[in-house]
Amino acid sequence: MDKERKTDKNNPLSQALKKITYGMYVVTTRKSAKEMSTRDEDYVAAGTISWVSQASFDPPLVTVAIKKNSDLHETIEKSRIFAINIVGKDQKDMLVPFAKETRIEGNNLDGYGFTDGEHTGAPILNDVPAYLECKVLEDITIGDHSIFVAEVLGGDTRNPDAMPLTEWEADMHYGG
Amino acid sequence: MDKERKTDKNNPLSQALKKITYGMYVVTTRKSAKEMSTRDEDYVAAGTISWVSQASFDPPLVTVAIKKNSDLHETIEKSRIFAINIVGKDQKDMLVPFAKETRIEGNNLDGYGFTDGEHTGAPILNDVPAYLECKVLEDITIGDHSIFVAEVLGGDTRNPDAMPLTEWEADMHYGG
Repeated sequence: MDKERKTDKNNPLSQALKKITYGMYVVTTRKSAKEMSTRDEDYVAAGTISWVSQASFDPPLVTVAIKKNSDLHETIEKSRIFAINIVGKDQKDMLVPFAKETRIEGNNLDGYGFTDGEHTGAPILNDVPAYLECKVLEDITIGDHSIFVAEVLGGDTRNPDAMPLTEWEADMHYGG
Repeated sequence: MDKERKTDKNNPLSQALKKITYGMYVVTTRKSAKEMSTRDEDYVAAGTISWVSQASFDPPLVTVAIKKNSDLHETIEKSRIFAINIVGKDQKDMLVPFAKETRIEGNNLDGYGFTDGEHTGAPILNDVPAYLECKVLEDITIGDHSIFVAEVLGGDTRNPDAMPLTEWEADMHYGG
């Protein structure tokens, strides 16, 4: 996620868009090498994003908007699955590493431990208070991001009392 | 917006969904009587919602998820336009009136003054710190809400310093 946006600070529409409230999320995905004849290694990608919302209770659906021409976007297009790792209020230091190029070393993703998601195989970060595993049902690309509409297949809350980090607290605004 | 959800408090997936962060918004819409042969009065509807996200910078797009079989949902399906009134941190008292049946009296909507939006004609609440006027481009209905993907035609920030109300502060959680 870029910290600086090209949006005009004097544009009233852009200023109003900046007043929408978001949390902070690390979205991860994996496309298994087993499903590809051309690769020996899985594709794994991760990114820091904020444009996430629930979109239905039954079935449980979410929408996420992911920047086009990014590694995360291209890998989700292939894998059609992802995990939303919900960043906790005290985990602001996690945002920058995941906003950079994805680096996987053993069971570390961008320096943070993970396990494979039970429903999707997407990396689930060990330290986040809660996560969701999602399967893409539809995607819409009109502008500079794709909107993925996904069913939530599973998820867990490791720390029910932990509060999520909000974008207002993270000092990292994506929008406008 | 219902305060009590039917979701299972012991369901880990539902608990994780509740950790997504939202702001609080009053969405309004209007279908002009001029466009209908069968009515003398405009259809106007409003509702308190939280499932809102930006989805593109260029063009500026948003997604909103609106409960099916609601007056707001049916009216947006007809009008294909809506306004997002961004509720300020000190405007918690606004949420309950707009969660009830829409009542329009002169220039008051559910007891709050409004003017007609320049781009859409949707009611813009006079007292909110910022608002967006939107035109529906696509809609997807898979679950119990419709996802409206809309272009932001205009918007304004009346009070750049005002902070928006977050769902965490509103004590009104919609999600799970």
